[in-house]
Amino acid sequence: MFYLLVSLKPTRSIMINKLVLIGAGNVATHIGQALYNQGVDIVQVYSRSLRSAKPLSKQLKAEPITDISQVQQVDAYLFAVKDDVIPELIAAFPFSGRIMLHTAGSVDMEVFSAKTSDYGVVYPLQTFSKQRSVDISEVPFCLEASNSDLAKLLEVWLRKISSSVQFLNKEQRASVHLAAVFACNFSNYMYTVAEDFLRHRQLNFSLLRPLISETARKVTHHLPSQVQTGPAIRADEKIMAKHLQLLTNAPEWQNLYRFVSDSIEKRHKKS
Amino acid sequence: MFYLLVSLKPTRSIMINKLVLIGAGNVATHIGQALYNQGVDIVQVYSRSLRSAKPLSKQLKAEPITDISQVQQVDAYLFAVKDDVIPELIAAFPFSGRIMLHTAGSVDMEVFSAKTSDYGVVYPLQTFSKQRSVDISEVPFCLEASNSDLAKLLEVWLRKISSSVQFLNKEQRASVHLAAVFACNFSNYMYTVAEDFLRHRQLNFSLLRPLISETARKVTHHLPSQVQTGPAIRADEKIMAKHLQLLTNAPEWQNLYRFVSDSIEKRHKKS
Repeated sequence: MFYLLVSLKPTRSIMINKLVLIGAGNVATHIGQALYNQGVDIVQVYSRSLRSAKPLSKQLKAEPITDISQVQQVDAYLFAVKDDVIPELIAAFPFSGRIMLHTAGSVDMEVFSAKTSDYGVVYPLQTFSKQRSVDISEVPFCLEASNSDLAKLLEVWLRKISSSVQFLNKEQRASVHLAAVFACNFSNYMYTVAEDFLRHRQLNFSLLRPLISETARKVTHHLPSQVQTGPAIRADEKIMAKHLQLLTNAPEWQNLYRFVSDSIEKRHKKS
Repeated sequence: MFYLLVSLKPTRSIMINKLVLIGAGNVATHIGQALYNQGVDIVQVYSRSLRSAKPLSKQLKAEPITDISQVQQVDAYLFAVKDDVIPELIAAFPFSGRIMLHTAGSVDMEVFSAKTSDYGVVYPLQTFSKQRSVDISEVPFCLEASNSDLAKLLEVWLRKISSSVQFLNKEQRASVHLAAVFACNFSNYMYTVAEDFLRHRQLNFSLLRPLISETARKVTHHLPSQVQTGPAIRADEKIMAKHLQLLTNAPEWQNLYRFVSDSIEKRHKKS
């Protein structure tokens, strides 16, 4: 008979059952609801004003608070607030040694290092609006953690709410955030210019909706560089001159049209 | 007993049973297939080269031709070719007095006026790629016709393949075309910049796909100006400075980032 003696170094037992949510905006709302639905006990919701803390805290059966010094001692604190506000909230944060997390694409996780050694980032790569529900299980979560115990915990924890979880370091996360600004914020602004221009001509934005849907659907199976269409990639100078002519009274849009068209021509000549 | 005598001015009986398709590109392919499926007899497909005329003509059981002077006499001719090419093809066109149509957003229908009095435009507001099938019944068709008989005919004819058919005059059509360049071509280019930037950083474009889908889905029920997100609309100067820093080695993208961000800030201050 064998006796196998193994020296097991005990791993720290950290877990997140009770959470305080710092923030009550779009990201806090969507992640808070997803965690709540997974049985996480969200004890408090902090926001600068009671008016914004109350509706979310009611949904999550949490206490609304407006003073960060009033947070209870729980397992973890999730900061889902405007990037600028994170440092001042941390400075006023009353405890140390707790798990502290934020959801920001462009903030280093070391922002927490004066308060705890268990800190990390849970960055959801999605655009959230309060008026729309998003299938959180399809949202890619980009994770980073200050140590491997917390990394394992976060991975297990996030896999409960999303099928797409991966670790990115801060440089990678910042790159993804920047790419998201182009792919999401700037493409939405291109829609807005179309909306404004059509309104100005008494035409309805809804005409463009099938086109916008198809443009986005195309890149679910292709790379955008492979499916570029339009006058610029065809180098159709005549049409571009007509379009610039139509924009004579809107020099800002004219400059934008010229800049993006030139950029498309250059990009596709090179490749 | 009454006898009601009504003087009925006979309307001209025009119809489109037999068609020649001029062009074998993306637009020609998608419209040609939809018309063929509706029982329209597509007699010939013209293209500059047999290599491009043949695959489509085979699908549509049509004769491929590469010389415009070889077109047969049929009810109507549908020009779905690059805008620049339309005038030269019309100049070489051997018949007069036939129904002549084009699919171009930015070409006046009067381009046909030397050849016939029955001419018009059938402009599909969609982005077509050969590798993707599009539900043509959801594509908005913008129509214009040189006379009311043809207008009626085109409306009935197009309603067979699309649920969204409307008449736009040439100024309106040109405006819609320009708006489509922003909403489709330019938004796809914003995706492309994201793709190129991520590739450069060894990150995968597929990370952005859920975000791109949601960004487009948002504007199916909202106006884009109402759902703008991102650092520029929040006037988050710190993040924007970081992003510009990340683009130091790509001055073109840096300029684009700066231009679009400034434009978003201005747009949303005003409103």
